[in-house]
Amino acid sequence: MAACDHEPKAKRLTNKPTFDQAFRDKLEELVLMRRDVRHFTSRKVPDEIVERCLNLACRAPSVGHSQPWRIVKVQDPVRRDAIIENFEQANAQALQNYEGTTAEAYSRLKLAGLRDADVHIAFFADMNADTGKGLGSNSMTETKLYSVVSAIQILWLALRAHGIGLGWVSILDPDRIARDLDVAPDWVFVGYLCIGYPVEETDTPELVKAGWQDRLPLTDLILER
Amino acid sequence: MAACDHEPKAKRLTNKPTFDQAFRDKLEELVLMRRDVRHFTSRKVPDEIVERCLNLACRAPSVGHSQPWRIVKVQDPVRRDAIIENFEQANAQALQNYEGTTAEAYSRLKLAGLRDADVHIAFFADMNADTGKGLGSNSMTETKLYSVVSAIQILWLALRAHGIGLGWVSILDPDRIARDLDVAPDWVFVGYLCIGYPVEETDTPELVKAGWQDRLPLTDLILER
Repeated sequence: MAACDHEPKAKRLTNKPTFDQAFRDKLEELVLMRRDVRHFTSRKVPDEIVERCLNLACRAPSVGHSQPWRIVKVQDPVRRDAIIENFEQANAQALQNYEGTTAEAYSRLKLAGLRDADVHIAFFADMNADTGKGLGSNSMTETKLYSVVSAIQILWLALRAHGIGLGWVSILDPDRIARDLDVAPDWVFVGYLCIGYPVEETDTPELVKAGWQDRLPLTDLILER
Repeated sequence: MAACDHEPKAKRLTNKPTFDQAFRDKLEELVLMRRDVRHFTSRKVPDEIVERCLNLACRAPSVGHSQPWRIVKVQDPVRRDAIIENFEQANAQALQNYEGTTAEAYSRLKLAGLRDADVHIAFFADMNADTGKGLGSNSMTETKLYSVVSAIQILWLALRAHGIGLGWVSILDPDRIARDLDVAPDWVFVGYLCIGYPVEETDTPELVKAGWQDRLPLTDLILER
């Protein structure tokens, strides 16, 4: 696969990089402009950008350097249809958890851009890979899943720096995803990612705009011990 | 808490930021220079940098915008000692999983900088918070944990851009952490973070240097469906 043929970065870093305030300001802006995108334009995402960002994502931290991320590019229209059906069923089921005006508000939300997104990528964790020899995950096996989430987060920021949006779809039956994508039995599904150019660039989450959930004051989130 | 009093960023972004190739190159370097740090100098980490980076971490994506991250700054020496004891017990137990030369190699590794790190922060997930009204996490409740991991990843990169290292300690009994830090019963422990200035800046993971685990070729990690 294209992403795999080159590891040019280590060489580039023989001069130790430094990061200045201008870069830090820009990094903050990047984080603030990262959105969970559900509305995509029809513009194609260049393969080489996806490859480059996936390459970078694989430099995420991983427990015991286990690198447990397993990445599935979903291109077959039949498989994509199966994912869409999975989402629609899980979403209909989720709707039943709400009543009255909340149910109405839920049903008005667009919660996935599966039909519009140019690129679909599923991330799994190989829980039984012996890379890393179990270091760091003996007492907390879930850290292998967390390593995969870290890779997704880096992918998300890297794509956003190219003006490309990502939407993480979690309203899914994870067992069915693994079946529909025909992956190894010990791979655990972590996230299904829709990737494409966003209709809108904004620093405000869609769920804030829709009145579903505001930002929390950080006073409630940090305590001292 | 200082981090909570201001949310100035939304205002700053009335002019939509753009990201150029120079920024993307620097972002790649940042990811490549991010390390899991276990060797810290005695230099103090300015409070305002920690606050600013925590503030940014709380702009991570979260399922249903639930913002389930709960952040505990651990300053009390008695509590820090309890964490160190927890780590030492879990590490001794983990060592029993290895034999022969692998056990010897394991015991030579320094796996946490708990005694040296200036700042200790524990991240939990509030699994029962009603923020986000369960949106997105009905079929996959683990996505709340994943949201917290995303916040940790942003914190990690933000600190690194200030030249500050972070080490994620996972060789711990998570139930004991929750008890020793006296947090709410429905908070699930995600990660314990040691933060300080690193002894060394490098693009090579410590476990690669130690010969424990090399990088995997990406060909093994990406497939198409």
